[in-house]
Amino acid sequence: MGGVTRRSFLESVGAAGGSGALFGAMGALGLAPTAAANPAPFEPPRPGDLALRGARPPRVVVLGGGVTGLATAYELRKAGYECLVLEAKDRPGGRNWTVRGGTAEKEITGHRQRARFADGEYMNAGPARIAQFMVTLDYCRELGIPIEPFSLDNCNACVYYENGGPLSRRRIENRKAKADVFGHVSELLAKATDQGALDKELGRDDRERLLAFLEDFGALTRSGDRLAYTGTNRRGYRVLPDTDDPPGVIDGPPPSVHDVLASGIGRDLSFNLEWPFQTVMFQPVGGMDRIPRALADRIGADRIRYGAQVLEVTDLPSGVDVLYTDGGGRKRTEHADYCVATLPPYIMARVPTNLGAHVTAALERPSRVPVSKIGLEYRRRWWEQDERIYGGLTHTDMDIGQIWYPCHGYHGRRGVLIGAYTEGPSTEGLDAMAPADRIRRAVAQGVKIHGPAYARELVSGFAVNWDRVPHIETGWVRWPSWTDGAYDLLNRPHGRVYFAGEWLTGFIGWQAGAIESARRAVTRIHQRTLATARP
Amino acid sequence: MGGVTRRSFLESVGAAGGSGALFGAMGALGLAPTAAANPAPFEPPRPGDLALRGARPPRVVVLGGGVTGLATAYELRKAGYECLVLEAKDRPGGRNWTVRGGTAEKEITGHRQRARFADGEYMNAGPARIAQFMVTLDYCRELGIPIEPFSLDNCNACVYYENGGPLSRRRIENRKAKADVFGHVSELLAKATDQGALDKELGRDDRERLLAFLEDFGALTRSGDRLAYTGTNRRGYRVLPDTDDPPGVIDGPPPSVHDVLASGIGRDLSFNLEWPFQTVMFQPVGGMDRIPRALADRIGADRIRYGAQVLEVTDLPSGVDVLYTDGGGRKRTEHADYCVATLPPYIMARVPTNLGAHVTAALERPSRVPVSKIGLEYRRRWWEQDERIYGGLTHTDMDIGQIWYPCHGYHGRRGVLIGAYTEGPSTEGLDAMAPADRIRRAVAQGVKIHGPAYARELVSGFAVNWDRVPHIETGWVRWPSWTDGAYDLLNRPHGRVYFAGEWLTGFIGWQAGAIESARRAVTRIHQRTLATARP
Repeated sequence: MGGVTRRSFLESVGAAGGSGALFGAMGALGLAPTAAANPAPFEPPRPGDLALRGARPPRVVVLGGGVTGLATAYELRKAGYECLVLEAKDRPGGRNWTVRGGTAEKEITGHRQRARFADGEYMNAGPARIAQFMVTLDYCRELGIPIEPFSLDNCNACVYYENGGPLSRRRIENRKAKADVFGHVSELLAKATDQGALDKELGRDDRERLLAFLEDFGALTRSGDRLAYTGTNRRGYRVLPDTDDPPGVIDGPPPSVHDVLASGIGRDLSFNLEWPFQTVMFQPVGGMDRIPRALADRIGADRIRYGAQVLEVTDLPSGVDVLYTDGGGRKRTEHADYCVATLPPYIMARVPTNLGAHVTAALERPSRVPVSKIGLEYRRRWWEQDERIYGGLTHTDMDIGQIWYPCHGYHGRRGVLIGAYTEGPSTEGLDAMAPADRIRRAVAQGVKIHGPAYARELVSGFAVNWDRVPHIETGWVRWPSWTDGAYDLLNRPHGRVYFAGEWLTGFIGWQAGAIESARRAVTRIHQRTLATARP
Repeated sequence: MGGVTRRSFLESVGAAGGSGALFGAMGALGLAPTAAANPAPFEPPRPGDLALRGARPPRVVVLGGGVTGLATAYELRKAGYECLVLEAKDRPGGRNWTVRGGTAEKEITGHRQRARFADGEYMNAGPARIAQFMVTLDYCRELGIPIEPFSLDNCNACVYYENGGPLSRRRIENRKAKADVFGHVSELLAKATDQGALDKELGRDDRERLLAFLEDFGALTRSGDRLAYTGTNRRGYRVLPDTDDPPGVIDGPPPSVHDVLASGIGRDLSFNLEWPFQTVMFQPVGGMDRIPRALADRIGADRIRYGAQVLEVTDLPSGVDVLYTDGGGRKRTEHADYCVATLPPYIMARVPTNLGAHVTAALERPSRVPVSKIGLEYRRRWWEQDERIYGGLTHTDMDIGQIWYPCHGYHGRRGVLIGAYTEGPSTEGLDAMAPADRIRRAVAQGVKIHGPAYARELVSGFAVNWDRVPHIETGWVRWPSWTDGAYDLLNRPHGRVYFAGEWLTGFIGWQAGAIESARRAVTRIHQRTLATARP
């Protein structure tokens, strides 16, 4: 799914504010060689593993058909484990949900929506982007799912801040925000350097090199022996270079250093400097749900039961009993050798088990992070045709948070853009509204940036507020602490029950975490099986 | 084709060093409204235009079947002009050339090459990327050519400098170069600010805002009341966040501020801040030559004569005579109402005409910029599989200039990367070699960055050194001046002869310039035709 703000992501991995401290601690240990320090790579169970040890294929019941549950069954199936996935919804994927024409959903509060998107149009309501380093890409490769770049940065997209000081309520292209912030900041540092402020820090050669870098980085111009930011073609042109006027006319003048600082137009410039939002990111061609659908296909339809709600989990000496209602509302018990429980922790905490109150208490520890995402379908791709924005994000300080321009279907007839993407307390306003009102609000805010086309060309919308989605109930979670015992407790097996989910990894809110956690459960169950079977 | 270095591009549009001056001049005029200042949009000739005025369709001979010549004929055909395109090579497109398996070329010096790329593999030897603002994208849309993003920036690609001071001959991932340069520069400015160096420049509130920006932009950490760069997860991780260690271990420590400045690892960080290299850029799916091939299809095969070399152009009161040899070596004369001459200026200067010595002298004015591009085909995509580099560029200070990782065919079986892209005097070394030696040299330099896989997995290569390509003879040109008369002279019609080409616009080396120049010639011929036909 991906943290909306850098800050929240950094907090989720414990890095915000602490990266220096973390790093310092590690530095004191010396530099461990890269390869040696990394954990052993995952070894998928292999077809012959069980037969070679004379083990009958164990039966594993998997609670939840999200990416964790599906990856668990997919990997276990490689060695022939008997798997049954119980999924409460009527589709695989959990939060990996691609909304298409005909997709229907009833919110917890009773509001119903039915997407009216045209054929081929979609929105990825949950995860939408994959970093290059993530194991998710390996699954795309293994499953034969083609990928395409997902752009976060676009010079033609913009920033728009209601609270933007002297530049409030103005649409500012990213190219201008970047040029002006880097330009003025570079000029300031050049001035300070020239005035001797860094003479103690830097030798003469380094000062010269710094000035050369600033001239380049800030697009500074030299007047006499002084470097100044007076504008640059990085801001774009008022008149493009053409035949009659080959140099063109640069768009300007730039705002003053005071206006740039007081407006805070640099506040989102570091967004895609942050790991894991660094360029290039990817998405599957055709929708993110190609991943869970491919996994479900490989697992086999007869091994996934949709509409199945877990009522009770009992760990026994000889196995696990899972009581659930099937799609028809009938109660059934599944007896298995192992259970992998991938439900969200706050939902699992409500399922009666015999694992002990400390387990339930641990499941109740993480706090929820609500997330809202709104898809808006337009009859024409005005952002490409009128504004030449081909993908990327616009950052705002309004309820909608961000606008995402689609990174697929370029030059197509229609398109679905993400008209709101927001997380945490800032979703509360949207959460409280009926879906149609959320869409109206998103459109009204988008009009402030893009003008009347944003309302006029609209065909339909679909609002996913994850706190309102049955059987999911929030965007992702946040641990109050990684080290107070609860996280570790749930990462340990409890009898024959294994918890798994991205919430049990350092990659909360990412499919990579779901896969990592699934692989961990798979490895442990497989090792246990082989150890038990050993003569 | 795109300037290789920012500096050279800026020079070509007259912006380097002069943007401030230009802008200052324009600023003195006040802010002209954006729309009003832009030239009138192109109006393509329409089917009824000639019939309505009772004009018979004029005959236009177009010299050169590159993008300028093809766009000229394509637009004129919309109103029914009789067009004949004379192209010396055996394919359309000129420098827009996509090399595929079977592509054969004999260099001016006699060296022969034949590409052995596998089916579906290709290299764009000429233009390879299209900025969002460029008219080229509109042609893709109009011609139904699908597009996909072309990534210039990639956190997993790297910089490698032989002359990199204390960090010489080290492969440094872009994510680390960026984090360390931005981090140290931000710390320096924070220090200077804290020491009062900017008290005259900035009020107290602005100083606080600047520090907040620097903390964010540089990923600085606060120790006491001091902001310092001590490393950041933007550099990547030595141990990725995982289940056992959710925060992970950040890769570090970063090099010192001296090492960062003295190494110059920031020298290429501004590359894609520059207009027109700002993100997002695009390429046609399947190869850049889909553009000229689509244009040629629309024009019709019978209106393009390949292997046709222009021998003489004579402007007459009643039309234009063009003497040429056809593909079979036979001399023929084409008589037309107008001639659009799109040959490169240094080649056109060698064609005898009756336009006068001043025209020939003007054609000889621009200097040539040699360009070299080398495609390397690998049996597997080791850059994705081993190094998780999905597209983007690596910058070096070696002969190869840059390495480009392919932005298409992700996760495919094979792939062609660009193992050298260089321009200007730095191509001389490669130009002088036989193609096989160029490829060997490129591989040897790539090995320094990527290790033995760069040589081991190689299947074949193809080296395009534009100075050695018959009928093209260089990469692009540079005008010594826009204003000394030669540029203007050639942009004026000479009797019934119109010169056209990207070299007659502010977009030298870009297809957008070719199209712009074509449109200008088309507009002028069409206006003249309509004016003449008027009763």
